[in-house]
Amino acid sequence: MIRRLAIVGVGLLGGSVAKAARAHGLGAEIVGIGRDAGRLQAARRDGALDHVTTDLAEGLREADLVVLASPVGVIVTLLDEVVRAGGPETIVTDVGSTKVAIVRAAERLGRTRPLRFVGSHPMAGSEQSGYGHARADLFRGATVVVTPTETSEPAAVKTVSAFWETLGAGRVVTLDPDAHDRAVAAISHLPHLVAMALVDAVDRFEPSAFDVAARGFRDTTRIAASDPIVWEEIFAANRDALGRSLVAFREALAELERLIVAGDAAAVRAAIARIKARREALP
Amino acid sequence: MIRRLAIVGVGLLGGSVAKAARAHGLGAEIVGIGRDAGRLQAARRDGALDHVTTDLAEGLREADLVVLASPVGVIVTLLDEVVRAGGPETIVTDVGSTKVAIVRAAERLGRTRPLRFVGSHPMAGSEQSGYGHARADLFRGATVVVTPTETSEPAAVKTVSAFWETLGAGRVVTLDPDAHDRAVAAISHLPHLVAMALVDAVDRFEPSAFDVAARGFRDTTRIAASDPIVWEEIFAANRDALGRSLVAFREALAELERLIVAGDAAAVRAAIARIKARREALP
Repeated sequence: MIRRLAIVGVGLLGGSVAKAARAHGLGAEIVGIGRDAGRLQAARRDGALDHVTTDLAEGLREADLVVLASPVGVIVTLLDEVVRAGGPETIVTDVGSTKVAIVRAAERLGRTRPLRFVGSHPMAGSEQSGYGHARADLFRGATVVVTPTETSEPAAVKTVSAFWETLGAGRVVTLDPDAHDRAVAAISHLPHLVAMALVDAVDRFEPSAFDVAARGFRDTTRIAASDPIVWEEIFAANRDALGRSLVAFREALAELERLIVAGDAAAVRAAIARIKARREALP
Repeated sequence: MIRRLAIVGVGLLGGSVAKAARAHGLGAEIVGIGRDAGRLQAARRDGALDHVTTDLAEGLREADLVVLASPVGVIVTLLDEVVRAGGPETIVTDVGSTKVAIVRAAERLGRTRPLRFVGSHPMAGSEQSGYGHARADLFRGATVVVTPTETSEPAAVKTVSAFWETLGAGRVVTLDPDAHDRAVAAISHLPHLVAMALVDAVDRFEPSAFDVAARGFRDTTRIAASDPIVWEEIFAANRDALGRSLVAFREALAELERLIVAGDAAAVRAAIARIKARREALP
């Protein structure tokens, strides 16, 4: 039973949590906590938030569930204060795109004080950012990864999983934080970095080509327009797994180029056909 | 005035030319020429084609405009026969994704016999292939590049440009074949190769990650499901420009990785912000 839901960071994801919770009748009181009072008021006028504050301790008081929706690096630095401000029954989760750094920080804090923390990562979002793009249906049908560890209370894991289901998630998947970070390095962080490099490559090689870009280029590089602050923190937090996925990417690219340069038409067709089948088999 | 329009290769693009020409009342008679009589009959029953044949010479007889819509390598090998089968007034264009190889072949043939050839490349298409995906509105609003050279008859250039405008093109742009091939290397061929390598990288690094892939991965890799025969020929035909664009891409990627590994947050944010602005400025 969530009476008081507190959301720290009311941007695209935090704002969407607020709107979805409101739409699904979750949380008698929804509190938004952020650094910018003006932006918080906009969300309050919208009806998504009942109460807004720039004071973390005040916002977290008597919260049943806290959702940390700041950039990844900020979440790590906030955890200590969140632990001190919450009550013993307060359950804490987050929506950070990397999990190892956040979960490790939470576990360190949990050694000195009870902490009902379970990491979450809703696989939803957009290259857009800010409360203005928040949507009540952002999580509808989405996969949400939760990353409990040995120290996580089963009741807290259950509450957090049920929370996402209520918000519309199509599927709640459990992964350990390391497996999560490897997976998102491969299917999210690497593609973001590569899409950014693609845009930059056109700028370096043939900037006039932007003028004839069609749907293929637009789709492939949509996520290259992602938020600089959010993505700098994600790349930094998941640097190791990202680096390993880059090795695999460079090998895959070099192998394709080698076949093309060798003029081995049958091998190029076979490689494309194998990759096409893989892409079409996506769930 | 196009009385007889002949289309060689009735797949996604050739079929869409037929349907669009029909929809816009172009060509009293539309003839489809291909290798597979069964597939041609399907298009004829559809009403997009008036007449179908597997005999190139028969199909081209008395054609006012011929559109070559086979894979790039096939177009090059067909040109000689097309020249011999067409009349002196027949205008020939194509929809190939690379232009240097095709235009050079046409110019060589033009030295011995009059040839009213103008290369075209409609920047429309899809990862799908085959007549079953052809659409009358495929070219609506699209940019079409035409690549006339010094030897192109102005009247033929005018007819081909007007043809694309009638089929719905939003813009007809003139580029020389080399500039075209550099541009499409950057904004089409490189992104296709990179999207394929991304899918393959996940397979190599963390195949279980496919299971949590969301919209970002789907959009970025949509074109990785492109047709193996078509794309092997495109990569081969534009190998040089593709290779040069790959150099620029690898430099861009290495630079981003260097900043991330160095932990230079301000520089990473500045690079992402610069790329984001470039992407958002796409026309």
